[in-house]
Amino acid sequence: MASHRIPRDKENDYSREAASARRDFIQQQTGVSLEHIGQYSTDPAALSGNCEHFTGMIQMPLGILGPLLINGEHAQGEFYVPMATTEGTLIASYNRGMRAITESGGITTTVFDDVMQRSPAFVFTSARESKAFAGWIEQNFDRIKEQAETTTSVGKLEFIQQWPMNRTLYTRWNYSTGDAAGQNMVSKASDFACKWILKNYPGEIELYAFSGNTDTDKKHSHMNFLHSRGKRVIAEIVLKKDVIEKMLHTTAKELQQFRRISTVGASLAGSGYDGGHSANGIASLFIATGQDEANVVESHTGSVYAEALDNGDLYWSWTMPSLIVATFGGGTGLPCQRECLEMMDCFGKGKAKKLAEIAAAVVAAGDISIASAIRSDEFVTAHETYGRNR
Amino acid sequence: MASHRIPRDKENDYSREAASARRDFIQQQTGVSLEHIGQYSTDPAALSGNCEHFTGMIQMPLGILGPLLINGEHAQGEFYVPMATTEGTLIASYNRGMRAITESGGITTTVFDDVMQRSPAFVFTSARESKAFAGWIEQNFDRIKEQAETTTSVGKLEFIQQWPMNRTLYTRWNYSTGDAAGQNMVSKASDFACKWILKNYPGEIELYAFSGNTDTDKKHSHMNFLHSRGKRVIAEIVLKKDVIEKMLHTTAKELQQFRRISTVGASLAGSGYDGGHSANGIASLFIATGQDEANVVESHTGSVYAEALDNGDLYWSWTMPSLIVATFGGGTGLPCQRECLEMMDCFGKGKAKKLAEIAAAVVAAGDISIASAIRSDEFVTAHETYGRNR
Amino acid sequence: MASHRIPRDKENDYSREAASARRDFIQQQTGVSLEHIGQYSTDPAALSGNCEHFTGMIQMPLGILGPLLINGEHAQGEFYVPMATTEGTLIASYNRGMRAITESGGITTTVFDDVMQRSPAFVFTSARESKAFAGWIEQNFDRIKEQAETTTSVGKLEFIQQWPMNRTLYTRWNYSTGDAAGQNMVSKASDFACKWILKNYPGEIELYAFSGNTDTDKKHSHMNFLHSRGKRVIAEIVLKKDVIEKMLHTTAKELQQFRRISTVGASLAGSGYDGGHSANGIASLFIATGQDEANVVESHTGSVYAEALDNGDLYWSWTMPSLIVATFGGGTGLPCQRECLEMMDCFGKGKAKKLAEIAAAVVAAGDISIASAIRSDEFVTAHETYGRNR
Amino acid sequence: MASHRIPRDKENDYSREAASARRDFIQQQTGVSLEHIGQYSTDPAALSGNCEHFTGMIQMPLGILGPLLINGEHAQGEFYVPMATTEGTLIASYNRGMRAITESGGITTTVFDDVMQRSPAFVFTSARESKAFAGWIEQNFDRIKEQAETTTSVGKLEFIQQWPMNRTLYTRWNYSTGDAAGQNMVSKASDFACKWILKNYPGEIELYAFSGNTDTDKKHSHMNFLHSRGKRVIAEIVLKKDVIEKMLHTTAKELQQFRRISTVGASLAGSGYDGGHSANGIASLFIATGQDEANVVESHTGSVYAEALDNGDLYWSWTMPSLIVATFGGGTGLPCQRECLEMMDCFGKGKAKKLAEIAAAVVAAGDISIASAIRSDEFVTAHETYGRNR
Repeated sequence: MASHRIPRDKENDYSREAASARRDFIQQQTGVSLEHIGQYSTDPAALSGNCEHFTGMIQMPLGILGPLLINGEHAQGEFYVPMATTEGTLIASYNRGMRAITESGGITTTVFDDVMQRSPAFVFTSARESKAFAGWIEQNFDRIKEQAETTTSVGKLEFIQQWPMNRTLYTRWNYSTGDAAGQNMVSKASDFACKWILKNYPGEIELYAFSGNTDTDKKHSHMNFLHSRGKRVIAEIVLKKDVIEKMLHTTAKELQQFRRISTVGASLAGSGYDGGHSANGIASLFIATGQDEANVVESHTGSVYAEALDNGDLYWSWTMPSLIVATFGGGTGLPCQRECLEMMDCFGKGKAKKLAEIAAAVVAAGDISIASAIRSDEFVTAHETYGRNR
Repeated sequence: MASHRIPRDKENDYSREAASARRDFIQQQTGVSLEHIGQYSTDPAALSGNCEHFTGMIQMPLGILGPLLINGEHAQGEFYVPMATTEGTLIASYNRGMRAITESGGITTTVFDDVMQRSPAFVFTSARESKAFAGWIEQNFDRIKEQAETTTSVGKLEFIQQWPMNRTLYTRWNYSTGDAAGQNMVSKASDFACKWILKNYPGEIELYAFSGNTDTDKKHSHMNFLHSRGKRVIAEIVLKKDVIEKMLHTTAKELQQFRRISTVGASLAGSGYDGGHSANGIASLFIATGQDEANVVESHTGSVYAEALDNGDLYWSWTMPSLIVATFGGGTGLPCQRECLEMMDCFGKGKAKKLAEIAAAVVAAGDISIASAIRSDEFVTAHETYGRNR
Repeated sequence: MASHRIPRDKENDYSREAASARRDFIQQQTGVSLEHIGQYSTDPAALSGNCEHFTGMIQMPLGILGPLLINGEHAQGEFYVPMATTEGTLIASYNRGMRAITESGGITTTVFDDVMQRSPAFVFTSARESKAFAGWIEQNFDRIKEQAETTTSVGKLEFIQQWPMNRTLYTRWNYSTGDAAGQNMVSKASDFACKWILKNYPGEIELYAFSGNTDTDKKHSHMNFLHSRGKRVIAEIVLKKDVIEKMLHTTAKELQQFRRISTVGASLAGSGYDGGHSANGIASLFIATGQDEANVVESHTGSVYAEALDNGDLYWSWTMPSLIVATFGGGTGLPCQRECLEMMDCFGKGKAKKLAEIAAAVVAAGDISIASAIRSDEFVTAHETYGRNR
Repeated sequence: MASHRIPRDKENDYSREAASARRDFIQQQTGVSLEHIGQYSTDPAALSGNCEHFTGMIQMPLGILGPLLINGEHAQGEFYVPMATTEGTLIASYNRGMRAITESGGITTTVFDDVMQRSPAFVFTSARESKAFAGWIEQNFDRIKEQAETTTSVGKLEFIQQWPMNRTLYTRWNYSTGDAAGQNMVSKASDFACKWILKNYPGEIELYAFSGNTDTDKKHSHMNFLHSRGKRVIAEIVLKKDVIEKMLHTTAKELQQFRRISTVGASLAGSGYDGGHSANGIASLFIATGQDEANVVESHTGSVYAEALDNGDLYWSWTMPSLIVATFGGGTGLPCQRECLEMMDCFGKGKAKKLAEIAAAVVAAGDISIASAIRSDEFVTAHETYGRNR
């Protein structure tokens, strides 16, 4: 089987040559030549923290949308939003929603929590020992925090949540992580502090698990819906009667009725999001801007709420409790991705909350558009025009 | 505001020129030049069903992994798997898992359901009318099916589920959709049949909603976990004692113990996936192969189960009830994406179940690697070596 | 320790004498004399299928409420409803709700499903075998049904649901059970048929579990919310503007607003019931009428929905998918309990759906009263007046 | 309709005479005479805080079980446990579980949280105002606490949780309430403090809802599972190999395997309890001891965990996060109920945690018995012998 090993170049694995060798290997093994994948402008040397076995580039179609008017705490003004997708209709639909927002005077966004977690678990002989340990953790929080923070100049351990279950103490360590998404930062910090705990706790710990799965990294969870992961952002708009009727071809009352139906349906389904299709906008924005592409599962969760007002306007809001975004680190510095961030002035330090607000506004745009399409019977027609029949 | 409109070319909007005009517009509006985004080999003319406002391409780093030995119903033999990501460590970690699988004799995959849904809702004056309608739907299923299937040569309406709630009847229409993911296909078919229902139902329907949100399109849901969406695939392996000890540096008993801790933690968190990090592998495979990038939220859900055997081996399985994959339509035909599909002989007709089995095997690889890393204390170290501190 | 054994009378254990001996034993062991518990009129001989170690009777205070006007499919007219409780305010509050219902012209109830389940699970060597077995079950449904129904003259096996998970096939067998709650009936029938399966299935079954926990007997579950257990009843009312204002001291719009707040809060909490306090009414009605007192956990689940109408009335509905009631068997024949059933003409055969409709109407009464109390600020006051400060 | 009003006696409504008048009224209205209900020894004058419209007593059959050996923090030694039920087999089954516990050396119980909640919600013009208010609540916690505690000599406001959703701030106020269950106590305290807030908050509050439904009073919820309501108690036992084999006719490995199957099934079902039948024991104990009978829905939730040990023993634990019990107030002082409490030395002040530990131990007994019955095929047989076919 040795001959089937994917070739690595020990000295210069992040290079055009190594990538080319891997494409050749695939051609040799499978008969398929990877021509388009070999076309790219990004310097492979920049990818050593992003993609082992670098073999080429997937070209993801990018559209730009907007302007999207946001009255945020951090994002203020009109934005052009980059979204990468292969799903026809998506961009046209989100763009319509952005127009409805902008013509209604913009969407207001507010950032609540800003947290990233690791969740070590500690197993004991019995719950009685777990209880003693739980008290010790509370009493020694300052020392634990100090240990954790020695590993990072940015991350701050804000608080630790605890849940005793059987003979195990599940914990969830909540950090602020600046403009990085922070998963690695909190992993390193927590692990370091946990090893300090293992050395210093006077009692006996039977087992230490780096993650007890309550973080819940790369998973949707009610925990995240409840206690946030990344940024908790609420986006709110009063959609104008005029816009609803002329652009969206429906009424506030109809949209409210549709919301009611959707909310009950979502509850019946045990759905992580009771609105329209947050995942579409988030995935496309995330890919365009170098976010961790898997974080769409955590980020898509949320609660949508609408109230028809007496004057024919519609109050509509999106509570997005788990938007995980970065403007620093990860894929944000890759050339294409950085261009997309810069287009919104969202690259680098001090920009993560701004990007989170934009993400929440994008979700709103998508839902406004799809809800009104469904109400006004344009949904299937739109997909017919733009999309392929999949 | 007219001057701020993103430029469209009415005659030739999917062209290098139109894309270039949009990049210029962005530069003019934001001062940011989109150079790297303008570098691509894909022919824009091919994108008319994929990406409105086409402006360029995001280059997503691609790695190849394998060989991954699968004993599936449809996927059989060794595969090299393409994964696109910007998250350091990810590919190295999944690749280790694939090696563990292959050296244990491969992973067995079995496809159960294969369904795609739309979920019209019908509102009545009262539940009494809803009950009458529910009976009528059952009695007229054959005629409804006939109507739905006039719109598609591939899709078949298999069965309709019903839930009466308040004065609304929520339905979930389950189709088989061949090798397409099928969301548009089932939308079109259901809408057509629903309009036939609206005309032919002898009673009175107060309101018809194209989707009552029980599909649950682009949302994680317990519904999908329970009743599948896309393919339900179970991947199973008996990891060999030898492999566990020498390659993964742990034991079957330790891995089982870790699984127990994770399962309780996931239940505490109300998590959509009780394993490690299915979303990472799925997102990366999906982007590489032109899948709908938002479907990772539905696809990542699943249930993981492990049993240490008396001989030191470990039975380990992944039940993935909602893997939404296509080998035809959508982004699958774009040049880079197609190359990735072809690399696994997964392009075109008759290949979707095969791709679903590969996806389930990828999930397994990722979980095997991360679980053993966490158990053997390599997790933080691995991220230190490969990843950037985000 | 032998001397500490609770005394049994091998020949006549369901007798006043045996009960008295057990009370004496407790007095001897604990020093506490059980005087009031020894006061009862029920003949112990009747308790052999209800209560082993019979020692006496708990006196549960009973109130009667009503009249409650119901326009059901089965319950029609005005009812006086018995409720047993020790919680002050409860009866006064429910009674007010009943008055609001009756003065609004009554509540309409509709029965949808009527099912009771057992959920055998079958474990195989691998999922591949589980898939084969799943097909065999489908093909042999008629024979399985025949076997199951040999054990009962009443129960009918309507359909079997299946869920493949890891190497296990979870099934849920849905029966109609006439006027019994049916848990024992379906246990016996399913076990009998499963043993027939074990003998007749040509493949190999590694393990058979009488219950795989998807029934979910005596547990709240989303499964029951979705697929019903017992009766699924929807109760609906148009509360009159006049009644809302004069009796409940609030308005339709305020009540609707309160519903919105409660629905979001319930979703945040991951609550099994998004209304007010279904469990109070159900528990009290169940105790009064000899229902299985633990079934309140399954029965309390539901979804509440309200819409303010333009004329100031309020459409309000309760979807109760899991009302488990009996008018035959269990505790229904005990003297006090039977009197309570007879008071509503709900004793014996052909009455279970009627009782389920009354239960749903009771839930509605409780929620109407508490919601309007909360809106109109009477809640704390009412508990001050009637309840004790607990 | 006036003639149909249930008779009240304005001066002496809690009397044998008033009860008798109501029974007469029912007989006149329905033709049913309530003879057995009229037989009771409890003095009606004691019921003014328990049961409006007092009409008589339901006789609930009571069995006594034990001895049950508990090594708790509060419950220590052997207990005889009173349980009221009409479900045949229940007591025999729980009693067997108690014997297994006692013969294994007893069950260890540990009390973690002890909290009771009210959950006011506050609505604002927008999320921005909600955010300001959230900060104000945090800063003024001490003053709010002071206000709340003026209404009670026992209750202490420990901490307030907050969740911003749309334009509403949901809060959950956590109190310790001594030996009362405390629902009324915390209602009164919270309402009082909220009215102080309404007066003193410098900003504008659009709407105040006494409960935003996150408490979640009388409802099962994931919130309670996560954050406790009442007492969080963990019960743990190492079941001896000998006891498992000789008394329960199974093995540790088989029981562990059964647990695995049940856990996956419960997760599939979205179940509030992943063990056997906690609700049975809790409901019966609650009715016997004058607990609020509806609280079984909150109390039955929990997580069960088992590990077969190498020596053939089985570690088995029950995490019960929401046991709501009182030894003071409510129905605890009624004569029969008090006798039952006294039998366990659980009446009055300083006993609530002890009773909670007993409740957790009862749950364990029930699950041990049913799990081993299912494994060893005795389940259906047992119900055949003792139960009626319902």
